[in-house]
Amino acid sequence: MTAPASRRLDGLVQALQRLPGIGVRSASRMAYHLLQHDREGALRLAQALQDAVAGVRHCALCHTFAEEEVCPTCADPTREAAQLCVVETPADQAALERTGAYQGRYFVLMGRLSPLDGIGPEHIGVRALLQRLQTPPPVREVILATSFTAEGEATAHVIAQLARPLGLTVTRLARGVPVGSELEFVDLGTIAHALADRR
Amino acid sequence: MTAPASRRLDGLVQALQRLPGIGVRSASRMAYHLLQHDREGALRLAQALQDAVAGVRHCALCHTFAEEEVCPTCADPTREAAQLCVVETPADQAALERTGAYQGRYFVLMGRLSPLDGIGPEHIGVRALLQRLQTPPPVREVILATSFTAEGEATAHVIAQLARPLGLTVTRLARGVPVGSELEFVDLGTIAHALADRR
Repeated sequence: MTAPASRRLDGLVQALQRLPGIGVRSASRMAYHLLQHDREGALRLAQALQDAVAGVRHCALCHTFAEEEVCPTCADPTREAAQLCVVETPADQAALERTGAYQGRYFVLMGRLSPLDGIGPEHIGVRALLQRLQTPPPVREVILATSFTAEGEATAHVIAQLARPLGLTVTRLARGVPVGSELEFVDLGTIAHALADRR
Repeated sequence: MTAPASRRLDGLVQALQRLPGIGVRSASRMAYHLLQHDREGALRLAQALQDAVAGVRHCALCHTFAEEEVCPTCADPTREAAQLCVVETPADQAALERTGAYQGRYFVLMGRLSPLDGIGPEHIGVRALLQRLQTPPPVREVILATSFTAEGEATAHVIAQLARPLGLTVTRLARGVPVGSELEFVDLGTIAHALADRR
């Protein structure tokens, strides 16, 4: 709340508060910084926002952000079409890709179930996923790679219940002790899972 | 770094990192949020950035952000012209205004000296302040209201040394025990100052 209010400055501070995790104090700091030290950065950000809104849509197959009708990963003919790994966000997909251990296709939900926040199956890509599972190329295995949190588990559960009646194999990423950890410092739930799933 | 890279999405993530305090992770989260849930907010932010860059400049008298040649505070004829309170940012000015205890004019440095970050007197409004002090309406007292940190104190010191040769009274906000505090929990430096400046 600057005393000698500039309408445009106030407008910028308000608009910056639409960013997740940004309150009025951070927004003011950002606005001051951009106007005082980085007006070129401000204009570049404005352009990037407009470009992204105009040009970024969802891949028709995997629902991730893409500029084309079908994203490069889905369009890649060398990837195993029978496996479909379901993740919550493009960042989760990127993490899986960096492992180099997966050669199948993806489906990106763009969220997870969160009844407390009013996010039900209709708000994330569950309907699009169902459609995808019934569209060629045929999928034989659905790998659930949602988070291992209460919300991620609920999301995985709902998807498993939808996919099994279609005759698909449904698997979940293994729970267990993270690589590099000493057992003493691993939480009990993880150890219990690792014990039950021992191989 | 999303695996199925969209050039526009990457561009947005990069542009968001120009904001102070925003790294690649926060920037990705912001970009996903805007594109998934708030495209209208993204466009509004783009417009606000462009409006602010185009329309916000510095007040010719006090150097704060303003849309006019002279900001409303400086243009207010009821404010005491002989007192000039020097602050670091518009937020500091706003804090002083909220007290309702000051009726004079302001000068906003838009920063503070920080030799370690390479910020010298030429990077903040020191030159404009000197000019202001020699421009009518005449100033008789300069009130230094920079932060009570090492950098704020250094800034105050430099300004005092420039203002005194002009024959101006130079004062500093009082250091002392904050209202509402119990002495037991106040740091020793503050108590020492409060003792020395007792009245």
